[in-house]
Amino acid sequence: MYFHEKRLQYPVKVENPDPVYARMLQQAIGGIEGEIRVCLQYFFQGWGNRAPNTKYRDVLLNTATEEIGHIEMLATAVALNLEGAPASLQETAAASNPVMNAVMGGGERPRHAVEGMLHRHILSTGMAAFPANCDGVPFDCSHVYASGNIVGDMFANVAAEATGRTLAVRLFNAAHDKGMQDMWRFLIARDTMHQQQWLAVIDELGGLTEGLPVPNSFDQNEETKEFSYAFFGTERNGVPVQPGRYSQGPSLDGKGEYHFVQAEPLGEEPVLGPARPDSGAQKEQMSEPPTNTSLRR
Amino acid sequence: MYFHEKRLQYPVKVENPDPVYARMLQQAIGGIEGEIRVCLQYFFQGWGNRAPNTKYRDVLLNTATEEIGHIEMLATAVALNLEGAPASLQETAAASNPVMNAVMGGGERPRHAVEGMLHRHILSTGMAAFPANCDGVPFDCSHVYASGNIVGDMFANVAAEATGRTLAVRLFNAAHDKGMQDMWRFLIARDTMHQQQWLAVIDELGGLTEGLPVPNSFDQNEETKEFSYAFFGTERNGVPVQPGRYSQGPSLDGKGEYHFVQAEPLGEEPVLGPARPDSGAQKEQMSEPPTNTSLRR
Amino acid sequence: MYFHEKRLQYPVKVENPDPVYARMLQQAIGGIEGEIRVCLQYFFQGWGNRAPNTKYRDVLLNTATEEIGHIEMLATAVALNLEGAPASLQETAAASNPVMNAVMGGGERPRHAVEGMLHRHILSTGMAAFPANCDGVPFDCSHVYASGNIVGDMFANVAAEATGRTLAVRLFNAAHDKGMQDMWRFLIARDTMHQQQWLAVIDELGGLTEGLPVPNSFDQNEETKEFSYAFFGTERNGVPVQPGRYSQGPSLDGKGEYHFVQAEPLGEEPVLGPARPDSGAQKEQMSEPPTNTSLRR
Amino acid sequence: MYFHEKRLQYPVKVENPDPVYARMLQQAIGGIEGEIRVCLQYFFQGWGNRAPNTKYRDVLLNTATEEIGHIEMLATAVALNLEGAPASLQETAAASNPVMNAVMGGGERPRHAVEGMLHRHILSTGMAAFPANCDGVPFDCSHVYASGNIVGDMFANVAAEATGRTLAVRLFNAAHDKGMQDMWRFLIARDTMHQQQWLAVIDELGGLTEGLPVPNSFDQNEETKEFSYAFFGTERNGVPVQPGRYSQGPSLDGKGEYHFVQAEPLGEEPVLGPARPDSGAQKEQMSEPPTNTSLRR
Amino acid sequence: MYFHEKRLQYPVKVENPDPVYARMLQQAIGGIEGEIRVCLQYFFQGWGNRAPNTKYRDVLLNTATEEIGHIEMLATAVALNLEGAPASLQETAAASNPVMNAVMGGGERPRHAVEGMLHRHILSTGMAAFPANCDGVPFDCSHVYASGNIVGDMFANVAAEATGRTLAVRLFNAAHDKGMQDMWRFLIARDTMHQQQWLAVIDELGGLTEGLPVPNSFDQNEETKEFSYAFFGTERNGVPVQPGRYSQGPSLDGKGEYHFVQAEPLGEEPVLGPARPDSGAQKEQMSEPPTNTSLRR
Amino acid sequence: MYFHEKRLQYPVKVENPDPVYARMLQQAIGGIEGEIRVCLQYFFQGWGNRAPNTKYRDVLLNTATEEIGHIEMLATAVALNLEGAPASLQETAAASNPVMNAVMGGGERPRHAVEGMLHRHILSTGMAAFPANCDGVPFDCSHVYASGNIVGDMFANVAAEATGRTLAVRLFNAAHDKGMQDMWRFLIARDTMHQQQWLAVIDELGGLTEGLPVPNSFDQNEETKEFSYAFFGTERNGVPVQPGRYSQGPSLDGKGEYHFVQAEPLGEEPVLGPARPDSGAQKEQMSEPPTNTSLRR
Repeated sequence: MYFHEKRLQYPVKVENPDPVYARMLQQAIGGIEGEIRVCLQYFFQGWGNRAPNTKYRDVLLNTATEEIGHIEMLATAVALNLEGAPASLQETAAASNPVMNAVMGGGERPRHAVEGMLHRHILSTGMAAFPANCDGVPFDCSHVYASGNIVGDMFANVAAEATGRTLAVRLFNAAHDKGMQDMWRFLIARDTMHQQQWLAVIDELGGLTEGLPVPNSFDQNEETKEFSYAFFGTERNGVPVQPGRYSQGPSLDGKGEYHFVQAEPLGEEPVLGPARPDSGAQKEQMSEPPTNTSLRR
Repeated sequence: MYFHEKRLQYPVKVENPDPVYARMLQQAIGGIEGEIRVCLQYFFQGWGNRAPNTKYRDVLLNTATEEIGHIEMLATAVALNLEGAPASLQETAAASNPVMNAVMGGGERPRHAVEGMLHRHILSTGMAAFPANCDGVPFDCSHVYASGNIVGDMFANVAAEATGRTLAVRLFNAAHDKGMQDMWRFLIARDTMHQQQWLAVIDELGGLTEGLPVPNSFDQNEETKEFSYAFFGTERNGVPVQPGRYSQGPSLDGKGEYHFVQAEPLGEEPVLGPARPDSGAQKEQMSEPPTNTSLRR
Repeated sequence: MYFHEKRLQYPVKVENPDPVYARMLQQAIGGIEGEIRVCLQYFFQGWGNRAPNTKYRDVLLNTATEEIGHIEMLATAVALNLEGAPASLQETAAASNPVMNAVMGGGERPRHAVEGMLHRHILSTGMAAFPANCDGVPFDCSHVYASGNIVGDMFANVAAEATGRTLAVRLFNAAHDKGMQDMWRFLIARDTMHQQQWLAVIDELGGLTEGLPVPNSFDQNEETKEFSYAFFGTERNGVPVQPGRYSQGPSLDGKGEYHFVQAEPLGEEPVLGPARPDSGAQKEQMSEPPTNTSLRR
Repeated sequence: MYFHEKRLQYPVKVENPDPVYARMLQQAIGGIEGEIRVCLQYFFQGWGNRAPNTKYRDVLLNTATEEIGHIEMLATAVALNLEGAPASLQETAAASNPVMNAVMGGGERPRHAVEGMLHRHILSTGMAAFPANCDGVPFDCSHVYASGNIVGDMFANVAAEATGRTLAVRLFNAAHDKGMQDMWRFLIARDTMHQQQWLAVIDELGGLTEGLPVPNSFDQNEETKEFSYAFFGTERNGVPVQPGRYSQGPSLDGKGEYHFVQAEPLGEEPVLGPARPDSGAQKEQMSEPPTNTSLRR
Repeated sequence: MYFHEKRLQYPVKVENPDPVYARMLQQAIGGIEGEIRVCLQYFFQGWGNRAPNTKYRDVLLNTATEEIGHIEMLATAVALNLEGAPASLQETAAASNPVMNAVMGGGERPRHAVEGMLHRHILSTGMAAFPANCDGVPFDCSHVYASGNIVGDMFANVAAEATGRTLAVRLFNAAHDKGMQDMWRFLIARDTMHQQQWLAVIDELGGLTEGLPVPNSFDQNEETKEFSYAFFGTERNGVPVQPGRYSQGPSLDGKGEYHFVQAEPLGEEPVLGPARPDSGAQKEQMSEPPTNTSLRR
Repeated sequence: MYFHEKRLQYPVKVENPDPVYARMLQQAIGGIEGEIRVCLQYFFQGWGNRAPNTKYRDVLLNTATEEIGHIEMLATAVALNLEGAPASLQETAAASNPVMNAVMGGGERPRHAVEGMLHRHILSTGMAAFPANCDGVPFDCSHVYASGNIVGDMFANVAAEATGRTLAVRLFNAAHDKGMQDMWRFLIARDTMHQQQWLAVIDELGGLTEGLPVPNSFDQNEETKEFSYAFFGTERNGVPVQPGRYSQGPSLDGKGEYHFVQAEPLGEEPVLGPARPDSGAQKEQMSEPPTNTSLRR
């Protein structure tokens, strides 16, 4: 069950509102690298965690709950960057609303026209954030990865926090407002920790040796082991890939030896049965029986 | 540029076609853990790879090209499992088409009614695969992760192959046909290698120490380091999380010390400006000026 | 900022797990009438609320926070209904896992085959909930309505809780497990209150007279008032609609009189300019100038 | 069955074409507040209306049919605003096509570059409207709400017309062309009526007392009535919400008394069974049986 | 502008309601081969038609208007097939509602359980149609093809009616109810005509010679004509494709000669610049300047 | 199975990088008229092709494989156009990176600000292409048309190449860089051939007479032939459509005679049964039995 406080997790201040920066910030809310994604991802991983005890469920729910507060910070940042934004094709930012202009201090700030804004900030939200990315594409919950395999999910979490911190760094670099920069210093630090903590869970669960390959519950004797540590080259003329850690030496899981193999087809040309007479195909797809039926026997 | 051979990368045979299994297989084609995803992910990571040389671009394109052949194998498997499937509400599988029945040998096989099938295999594809998951939801290319940060992308690739191998194991376990089981033994082996090879690239690029946190090009002195290795507890009453690798000891990147902190709000309650008069809000949203403007200054 | 407790808001117990009911429950999680939607909707309305004070922001955030706990309850209910579910085409529910079977008491319960299940509960989540509806279509955040007009948003909230309670009643009626029925008795009661509380906000903001039409900040003298309270009949032969509250008597906002009007075109046939020569159209679309240009002058 | 006339429902004229305004207009076509949505929503509500008679079916179909004409008006407005728009990176609006320029009168008009336009107006439609919103996100029919509960649906209709009229007002305010302003005066008036007519249907069906809570066919004795009129506070430290109509006094449906309750967990910590051995989870998720099984009994 | 009549375009009767057939019918409503698609496609092609006169605009709008009536017929067919359908896991179809059972005549009919149904027919629509396909995936208006090139659009229309008639034939073959079969006989006939009429427009506009290649307004001397009629073989070892109309003889547009060419790369290996220092990439992506810059000069 | 070469199919060079043109190019990658679509469409048509022999399967796979190389060319073109693009709100294109500026020759080039770019090129991809259209909407594989009817699919292919070439012509016209123009000359030529080759397959399979109507395997005596060649006028007052090839003379398939018919309703007003008592509808929807049950008998 959940509770809230009115105060933000960390201060969010905007001295020089910039409606184009508001657009950029949307990526950190509703982009696939954004906060809604990690929030829901940790929640669903936690709520569905099957394990002998609730240790990792708790870890996940603690951090999921933190992430709601990050969405809140960013939604606040979007709204503050939209103060004084233009709402018609004739206006420019911050010139539009004299009262607001005075209230905000009238300092030096970028002036943008409607053209560079996300129009839905004007037309659909009344100058506020919405759960979509910087192009206005709504967040789609298929990006909430929760596979039921905890190590697989932890790698997905590391990936999410890695692209999340990459996005945060880009938004820090693109920012010109001190308040925004300060907010990012905090959120970048949190992304650092979140990368580290999910790696720590992998480490506890056997790390890169016992934990792998995911799922480690599958008996590797059942797989065609001949191909389990082979780098397949698919260059048309057999030119090998430049040698690297991935093509020679012991595998990272300690269970095999990387080696390079030029890929060649091991199967046959597939042959499907003709269309059945009542299947809505053309007549020409139905007449002759296939002569090579090897694949289906 | 690309080339093909008519033969499959590995044999795909189906003795006992099963249209419900055809449905399950769709997840490995058009699901987010499926082959279209990794294929396009490696292609876009490769085509957009910015680096001093083309080493990793080549690695990525070699494997991306292999993955096309995996989609082909699975599409073939779907079509073969749909041979003799029912197409109307009265039929049952394999009873429907006497010619096909004879051709296929008439052995023991499961009989399924239309109800358990993916109806679009009948109505929309004429008994063939399509680029959607096992519920018929089309693959959506927002799942092609290519962030421009190579280590972040490699973690995304490991995650994709980890959930991919998990799915493959589940499909192996659900299969009752020897040909299908043999196909999965091969594809599971390839997923083993693909997990290992992307981890090897991370290793080459500094591994879990120099490579992290992603992006490692951001100067950590710019982030609020006080929070960079702190596990934030969000339990309402301050109950700490059960101690673990994520809350004590040196961090995996060797740059900090994990520690537990009970989270408390550091910011203030946010206050937004009122709605502007011409913004389509209610009158009641416009009248009073905000009295607390601290957040915007 | 947000906090959590490990205990659920209300007990969730399942005596007789039913994997098909688990499928149905997904609609209440990731359907458009479900809990993710209202949770995010109240959050974004609250975070973006522009008003002279924070009263309604607080109301919204209190209830948004409650809704996270509802998603948690339903996710738990899905996982519990999937205990003992089949994972291959040969199994039936609860026969699959003898240990689990014993643990759960072995009572009378429905036995379902994989065919009736959402296959992704097996293939993608490892027998747990995910943020999608009962057909596996992921929740899409475009359903988070937050327009910046508080009365409009409150109507959207009433609508969400009305369809939400309708869904809850249907799931109550479809349930055969006492624990599930008890959970729904609670959630239906909460939906009752949520309908009532959003209507109460409308009431405080002027109700059906001063609050309407939405937005009430637009001067109705600017609209073509002749058509503001006219029911337009579009029956081809002028047959009027059966009279009702919507076609006669004073309007509910007290600002007009409903009346019936047979609709007739008041505009002209539109004429567009021809395609420009370099626009990728066919040559035949470019040659003649339009002779009737009245619409563009 | 349906018929058409070539003339528009109301005149659509554009003196000063503006391709950026064409972009904004797309929101009223393919946005969730737009005309495609209400058109299809009323159609599906009407076609599926289950009731003792066809009265409301007819009301719905009369208005649904009117809405097709509104989409037509807006599609025409988009095309007229794109007359003379630039199609390459070097052009500016209306300078591009001298013939068109002359035809259109050469008056004072805004000049926009391609950058501010929706590029698909150039690349994909040949300077015409398409069923997407102002960011080019296609309309998705999941927004067609038709629940089978007529009062729930009417609230959804009021909400759609409320956000629709809010959008219309914003587009009126953003417009600088007299023809466009006149079109909006008409459409805003129609949105006024549509809000009023759906409220009138609610009124006929029992209004805010007998009609509620939706669905009114569910016996409220079956719900946990203790919580049916309670406002749950979720502030961490028990700070109550500011009192209002939603927390005190008789409920709007006349069936209860609003009151404030500080929310506390009434359930227990959920415990899920461990992963089954063949489920693709990690080994570590399988070993120990859960010790607390209270939730599943 | 648009009008309606209460009667359907053609009779829709269902003697033996079948809720699984209701599911199948959804494909013809909200599938990509369905009626919503062609309806909106013809409307948007008509409303945006740029041409010297309104001839084809009128043709398009006449047929678009007809298609609304087809959606109406199918929505009615879905609702009638859901009469007496089960709504809980214990029921079977038509046993559920004794009154309805008697009303409908009690004849021989298939009995289906909830498992084979589209659950949203129960949970979300109250036993009525909705604008989604047979898997419950909502129709997405990106499938409304209207390119601004009339011949391109006509080919898209022929394709839509070809897959539409294919679907209709499959649904006719799957039907067991005489009323449904009769409805399909009519709709299949209309699809025949619609294929023919769009081909007739292509014919009027120059047919397969003058009309092609689309767009015919582009001067073919601008394209690299050497490759304009060459079939490129991409078989790895140069095995040519089996000869056919597509690889020899005069082209269908009369402007070239088909011939087979084994494809070989004509370009170079692409080289991208390294990542910029502030771009959120890894340090290792930034250090060395590219040595081969030929592609960028 | 598939192979690759490092060299591109055709040279891709960019002298004057333009980040806004990079945005436009995305439409040719991930737009519905783009290369991912045709690539996957031909692959799935080929892999699922049911026919007496593999002739068309081979044709499809040869061209599908070519298309991968086109996506590669365009992805390269996007990345090259993003060299030197701005990454913050203060920069302008090509001024941003002095090293890159020098490397690229410093010639005359357009300077664009971040505002006109696709922000995700900065925030999400690190200045590279991604599988989305020019508005950042991800490609959705529901656009991969493969119906199982080969002639229907060939029309879909012609339509795809027709809109594809239209897009290519528009991008050629919008381009100002010689390298880009040269790339388009090649790709436009390939689109010419692809239109021609799919038409050639239709020709081989009976052309516009024996091949039609699609599917030609359905006995036209089963359809209501009275309406198979009738153009239905839906003008409200019976105004006929302007005569054309579509309304008079022999049909293109040679099997009928086009004629004009004013459409009139042939069915009755539909009547649905009332809502069942436990269906979550309002009480008012349940009470009276329908009096007109003609449609259901």
